Amino acid sequence: MPTVLVLDADPPPRLGSLIGRAQVVRTDGDSLAALLPSADVLLVWDHTSDAVRRAWPGTGPRPRWVHAASAGVDHVLGPELVASGTVVTNARGIFEGPVAEYVAALVLAMAKDLPRTLDLQRHGEWRHRDTLRVAGSRAVVVGSGPIGKAVARTLKALGVRTAVVGRVSGPGVHGPDELDRMLARADWIVCAAPLTAQTRGMFGSRRFGMMQPSARFVNVGRGALVVTDELVDALSRRWIAGAALDVFEVEPVGERSPLWGVPGLIVSPHMSGDVLGWRDALGAQFVEQFGRWVRGEVLRNVVDKPRGYVPGP
Amino acid sequence: MPTVLVLDADPPPRLGSLIGRAQVVRTDGDSLAALLPSADVLLVWDHTSDAVRRAWPGTGPRPRWVHAASAGVDHVLGPELVASGTVVTNARGIFEGPVAEYVAALVLAMAKDLPRTLDLQRHGEWRHRDTLRVAGSRAVVVGSGPIGKAVARTLKALGVRTAVVGRVSGPGVHGPDELDRMLARADWIVCAAPLTAQTRGMFGSRRFGMMQPSARFVNVGRGALVVTDELVDALSRRWIAGAALDVFEVEPVGERSPLWGVPGLIVSPHMSGDVLGWRDALGAQFVEQFGRWVRGEVLRNVVDKPRGYVPGP
Repeated sequence: MPTVLVLDADPPPRLGSLIGRAQVVRTDGDSLAALLPSADVLLVWDHTSDAVRRAWPGTGPRPRWVHAASAGVDHVLGPELVASGTVVTNARGIFEGPVAEYVAALVLAMAKDLPRTLDLQRHGEWRHRDTLRVAGSRAVVVGSGPIGKAVARTLKALGVRTAVVGRVSGPGVHGPDELDRMLARADWIVCAAPLTAQTRGMFGSRRFGMMQPSARFVNVGRGALVVTDELVDALSRRWIAGAALDVFEVEPVGERSPLWGVPGLIVSPHMSGDVLGWRDALGAQFVEQFGRWVRGEVLRNVVDKPRGYVPGP
Repeated sequence: MPTVLVLDADPPPRLGSLIGRAQVVRTDGDSLAALLPSADVLLVWDHTSDAVRRAWPGTGPRPRWVHAASAGVDHVLGPELVASGTVVTNARGIFEGPVAEYVAALVLAMAKDLPRTLDLQRHGEWRHRDTLRVAGSRAVVVGSGPIGKAVARTLKALGVRTAVVGRVSGPGVHGPDELDRMLARADWIVCAAPLTAQTRGMFGSRRFGMMQPSARFVNVGRGALVVTDELVDALSRRWIAGAALDVFEVEPVGERSPLWGVPGLIVSPHMSGDVLGWRDALGAQFVEQFGRWVRGEVLRNVVDKPRGYVPGP
């Protein structure tokens, strides 16, 4: 019976259907290194931990398969794991629709000035404002994976003229050489890219400086895609009109972080993809993948490890 | 040259292109009664005033045409005007898309718990929550005019299973006898009906009581469609999970009104249709209608006065 090691977080996943089919061992980050060499499968349930990068046991044969219960795999992919023969899979298919709705919620809230409406409500102040029409405005979605594409579909459904920029151009996807030109005329810039060596810090002063003063920036990818200090600076200098971050270089954001109070910035706690039932959906997805693995079938959502994400349509 | 009387509010409409084609006279509610009998046309620019109802000069021949620069005409239609031969038109075509986006913004904000996120942000508190998927949820839109239909189109574009209820059933519209059954299983109830004798107070304890405890109610129609005290009561008893009002029986809502502080209620200052440029669009629409009227052509957006709205597709 194979050993499935689970790098866990509260609450544990629902893996009851593995009983009798696998020996399930739970671990935390501290014990991970000692247990990894004896595991056949590693389920990285805790998407907030980079323990796997630190604990990976060289280029040895085990575990043979690592499943990350998340869309991003940057917290998993250390150089030894990339160089090894171990297969890495991710949670593609779970978060796309919810993240797209969350982005639509942020875009519409900013267009309709909802945060200010709620502020005025707290003060009992009736103050009419004219707001923005979303239909006919322009968006650029950075990231051509399933999340970026779902975001683009949802914005298009609202009448937003939406372009997608990816690592390589293709049908419906613009290449990176077109990014700066598109940023300069976008009303909404949505970052939904994977975190890789190429994308780290891709949004900094240079790119915020070329956006329109009326532009608004949304990050639902990974925190380190953005140079946060430079975003704060761009907001304070009014290079752009607003921003919303759901992901951060360090999570959770500490109580005393100045980020909470930056004018024009909406801060939310990495929840864009997490609709009711998301843990169950992730658990069911792993159980389904485990069945394929046991039967020797091809796994779904296999990560291109050197690239750092699942390629393909 | 015809006299166009303008019941005005700040800022005045842009009627410059009427110079040389009409004598434009501005008035406030107090002087309206004295000026009405000598006017050929009345433009009701101030949509917050019911002065027309009060000042209408019996069933005499003038003004021959009243244009309301608003979607609702309840503030204009007194019994004498209804009985008269005067034509009444409204601003159909201006507000549909903006109101639909505003409703989508409210629905998504409630689904994604955005008001709470902004509250937590003010306190520097990182607290992850699971939120609701909008796609696959059920909405009922009450009101089958152009605004109700636009709201339905936008919600459907987000994957919401949306039904429209109107005064009479027809293609894509359910009749009023189906309303209560549909309310009982809706996640979102959006009121976009005109205010008439039949619809006044249509949302009260009886109907809030039959909604699901998880349901949320949005009113972008007219304040008096809702018995506000009974909505507040329904929220406090948790008969429904939340509500958003953009319109009120008395506007503006006073600084000391308890409405501002009702838990689960979003209060906004009658702005759902007002995107940048809306005044210009209303002014241009009146100028275009005036041209038709001068040339003796059929006016657009003619209100069925006994019914209280513009009928038709």
